[in-house]
Amino acid sequence: MASTPDPRLKEIMAALTRHLHEFAREVDLTPEEWLEGIKFLTAVGQKCTAYRQEFILLSDTLGLSSLVNALHDRRATEAGTKSSLVGPFYRQDSPVMKLGDTIVTKPTNGQEICIYGRVTDSADRGVANASVQIWQPDETGNYDLQKHDPSEMDLRGTFFTDSQGFFYLRTIAPLGYMIPMDGPVGDMIRAQKRHGYRPAHIHFIIAAAGYREVVTALYLRGDEHIESDTVFGVTASLVTDIRSKDPDSPIPNLPSIRFDFQLAAAQAVGSGRVGADPSQITKRAAG
Amino acid sequence: MASTPDPRLKEIMAALTRHLHEFAREVDLTPEEWLEGIKFLTAVGQKCTAYRQEFILLSDTLGLSSLVNALHDRRATEAGTKSSLVGPFYRQDSPVMKLGDTIVTKPTNGQEICIYGRVTDSADRGVANASVQIWQPDETGNYDLQKHDPSEMDLRGTFFTDSQGFFYLRTIAPLGYMIPMDGPVGDMIRAQKRHGYRPAHIHFIIAAAGYREVVTALYLRGDEHIESDTVFGVTASLVTDIRSKDPDSPIPNLPSIRFDFQLAAAQAVGSGRVGADPSQITKRAAG
Repeated sequence: MASTPDPRLKEIMAALTRHLHEFAREVDLTPEEWLEGIKFLTAVGQKCTAYRQEFILLSDTLGLSSLVNALHDRRATEAGTKSSLVGPFYRQDSPVMKLGDTIVTKPTNGQEICIYGRVTDSADRGVANASVQIWQPDETGNYDLQKHDPSEMDLRGTFFTDSQGFFYLRTIAPLGYMIPMDGPVGDMIRAQKRHGYRPAHIHFIIAAAGYREVVTALYLRGDEHIESDTVFGVTASLVTDIRSKDPDSPIPNLPSIRFDFQLAAAQAVGSGRVGADPSQITKRAAG
Repeated sequence: MASTPDPRLKEIMAALTRHLHEFAREVDLTPEEWLEGIKFLTAVGQKCTAYRQEFILLSDTLGLSSLVNALHDRRATEAGTKSSLVGPFYRQDSPVMKLGDTIVTKPTNGQEICIYGRVTDSADRGVANASVQIWQPDETGNYDLQKHDPSEMDLRGTFFTDSQGFFYLRTIAPLGYMIPMDGPVGDMIRAQKRHGYRPAHIHFIIAAAGYREVVTALYLRGDEHIESDTVFGVTASLVTDIRSKDPDSPIPNLPSIRFDFQLAAAQAVGSGRVGADPSQITKRAAG
């Protein structure tokens, strides 16, 4: 591997190989166990389709995705909204909508709510024309990809903030859910006797020219799995409430969530380290 | 993961998760690099078919398979023939043949040879009725799975030793080859500027009741890649010669390879440690 021209690829592959070998040596891995591992990883890859990403699910359930997020947050030199898992259900090119539109496109029994807030910079100034991508499961805990014709998008949208950095939209309150358990990752979760649940949450990607993109999610306080998310996605600063009465809401007759997203400057990437201690995630994942 | 009932699974998953996280933290893995890794592993899984095992190829090219073999050999308390890679081309249920039969079933331009030898125990006593599975590529470096109708077996066979532990068969001299380069592992090998070649070799699995199964391969001395096998499979004790004249050969008019396989007792598995130092393999793989 010493011949690898790209220095970063060389660094990554050398470290990966070393840790892979240290793992095998530490547990004294047998040929039978190695073959089980080969079969498992093959099944994970074969479970992936255009509408399902089992390797992201594996990364999520092993706590790797959360760790990568924490490392990413730590590289920022300015404070910003914490990252959370992109998860296996993100889709590009969700429909662009006007402020105040609803992302609900199918008949639903869900509780309609308003989500609103501001996108700001680290000095609390509004960021105009920031894109706010949102995606979420419905009131039964299912994403569009898991229901009806998966080529049709539902409960997804892309909004742009106004000149003051404000955004607002209509949706329904999501339900928490069990991760997809009909694949090899589900087999693993069962073998580990984990509950497999994620607390109710709503995904966001916030982006604006000149700022670090934020991939994150808001978690609903009170969900019974808020302290035991099977993919280690919850951070205290991302836990929020649905308020039944909120006079400040732009749609005051609906229950609402207000959340302000803070963007760190894109150029402020460097050696400064702020944010969560990633070792805590490993500790929880290794349990 | 603390809830995992099976203690060995718990041990393996805890160590795997810890090393995975240590790797990510050590290289300060970015979300973009993480996604590249997800895509790569997905492509490896999707390249696998009933006739192709890209994850074994990945394990082989990262030196993990050789390490697992070395750990396996080290657990034996009796000396025996060293292990080598099973590789991605093994097939179960190869045809059972009589001693002296040829495993060549298709027209060939290869040099016909005889392979013979004894299967012995650690005290050099012949082991009767041991099964000797053999598989190999042809004189152009291709396995049956890579040629014609892959459902038809060629250059594979299962033999049983006689009452004295002897076996002999006819085949052709194999050529070394480049590992399959049309998948994601090939992309990796190219990105690392590795040559991708394996030296000429012939695979064997030797098994007999009461003994540890030996998964191994014989390598032909003089091959230009004998010192730089891209999957780290070569061990000095497995390098052999085709002798043009061998009066001891049971088929003396053919060039021949003689190799004696030594089986360690199955019950002699334990903490005793013999054999190669596995750290050497890691050193070579990490380059």
